Amino acid sequence: MEELKVFAPATVANLSCGFDVLGCCLDSVGDEMLVRRNDLDQIRITRITGQDLPLEADKNVAGVAVNALLQKLGSNQGFDIEIIKKIKPGSGIGSSAASSAGAVFAVNKLLGEPFDKLDLISFAMQGELLASGNAHADNVAPAILGGFSLVRSYCPLEVLSLPVPSELRMVVLHPLIEIKTKDSRSIIRQNVSLQKAISQWGNLGALVSALYTEDYGLLGRSLKDEIVEPVRSILIPYFQELRELVSEKGALGFGISGSGPSVYALCKGDANAELVKEEIQRFYSDKNIAFELHLSSINEKGVKVL
Amino acid sequence: MEELKVFAPATVANLSCGFDVLGCCLDSVGDEMLVRRNDLDQIRITRITGQDLPLEADKNVAGVAVNALLQKLGSNQGFDIEIIKKIKPGSGIGSSAASSAGAVFAVNKLLGEPFDKLDLISFAMQGELLASGNAHADNVAPAILGGFSLVRSYCPLEVLSLPVPSELRMVVLHPLIEIKTKDSRSIIRQNVSLQKAISQWGNLGALVSALYTEDYGLLGRSLKDEIVEPVRSILIPYFQELRELVSEKGALGFGISGSGPSVYALCKGDANAELVKEEIQRFYSDKNIAFELHLSSINEKGVKVL
Repeated sequence: MEELKVFAPATVANLSCGFDVLGCCLDSVGDEMLVRRNDLDQIRITRITGQDLPLEADKNVAGVAVNALLQKLGSNQGFDIEIIKKIKPGSGIGSSAASSAGAVFAVNKLLGEPFDKLDLISFAMQGELLASGNAHADNVAPAILGGFSLVRSYCPLEVLSLPVPSELRMVVLHPLIEIKTKDSRSIIRQNVSLQKAISQWGNLGALVSALYTEDYGLLGRSLKDEIVEPVRSILIPYFQELRELVSEKGALGFGISGSGPSVYALCKGDANAELVKEEIQRFYSDKNIAFELHLSSINEKGVKVL
Repeated sequence: MEELKVFAPATVANLSCGFDVLGCCLDSVGDEMLVRRNDLDQIRITRITGQDLPLEADKNVAGVAVNALLQKLGSNQGFDIEIIKKIKPGSGIGSSAASSAGAVFAVNKLLGEPFDKLDLISFAMQGELLASGNAHADNVAPAILGGFSLVRSYCPLEVLSLPVPSELRMVVLHPLIEIKTKDSRSIIRQNVSLQKAISQWGNLGALVSALYTEDYGLLGRSLKDEIVEPVRSILIPYFQELRELVSEKGALGFGISGSGPSVYALCKGDANAELVKEEIQRFYSDKNIAFELHLSSINEKGVKVL
């Protein structure tokens, strides 16, 4: 096999009470990547369409992630990577994670799958380190594994795949404003009240239970975040109004996707998701903020060959 | 029905990463209670054997819990309550919770079950309020529901029952020392680092997953508490040595039961639990501290009629 085209999906991390540990994979939003062996002993980003991103392999998340894989393998095989970028960088739905995950997935396939998915996650995390200064796994894990991923531990890395209730749908609103990752990080307090932390882990435990039992009501009641959301949501225009709107229209839960500015509404069933999407569309249309809206089911496969 | 005898089980709350939200119910340790209608329009604690506890109904957790139930019902039916106390007060395995839970369970039965189990938990919590100044539910919930109980929310009260992997066994060591609840509370910091809180909820999410999938290894890896245990364990003699000992002997996890001084070791299977129990017995025997040791399976029924 000389070349491979893959779909590299967007992901929603920091799912409310699952801040920093829980993410899920989308189906209808993602990049396409074409990865091809070359004879040059080097990784080249040959083309990026759709976005203006670095072509130097050591400044591009896909290049860095593939490099981590090849180093571990002790291989100097070269690859050309072409990225058809459909996820906007800085959107909060795992743009860098998609590129990192897609690249290592494709290269691993082309090399005859020397690594398992947990290894691929750890290589893709090197892309995240480049992108955000933090080798987090809560986007790359669901991008590679599909479904819901829970990062239990970083040292050693342990990631669980949780079940996906079949009627779950995700509506994602991406207001086209820029929030600097630095700003969105710096406003988080590094100490939290024990009481709020206890509520948070009670809710996360309940959320995990709800995924196993397909209890949509419980899932909705658990999607709370009293710790990060109250501060980060300030940076997102009309956050509270959106929450009220989608809750009124029957969405199960609502929160910030990643570090924003995207927000997600989790819904039960296509009809409700369509309704919630339309209502957001209507509400945001007169706000003088350009935006994108996505409706997706949960992608249980993760990165896949096209 | 005029009288009823019930078994009111001991419970292990604050299960490591489940601090303040997760408890489980024991099978082989518990009180017996005899509850009987009287014609006096009042609740009387007629006898307590085994321990020196208040006989005045408004100073006894069982009396207070039953009173909360009768008030809600608007009934002035009287009851005589006799308690054969086998769980030592102050042990950290839910002594007050057993009395509160057993009493409201029995009275509810004698009255034709006007209340459901969630109601009974809220009445029994009034006993906990008397005993510790805090109406917590993480002992009374598993005492009433059996198995593992997760308290998701207090306002409104929402408690989940989680599955019980069949081979789980609990070994509980109760060093007969006194730790004042006030001391054990006062040393907990009211602010915690966000990083540690994130680890804690990642572990709790994984623990809940492990209960659903019967993944004993994962269960063991998740039973961590970096927040409360490091400070509270200081009050428990030989805590670290015990942890090393039981871990070496193959126990899945180890931690403080309730607010101590009891500690628990969670084991897979009878043989391992017996081994762990014997090793603790041997280790603690020359330490000049009197102690009790219990080995129990997880009680999936909770309070039951004898």
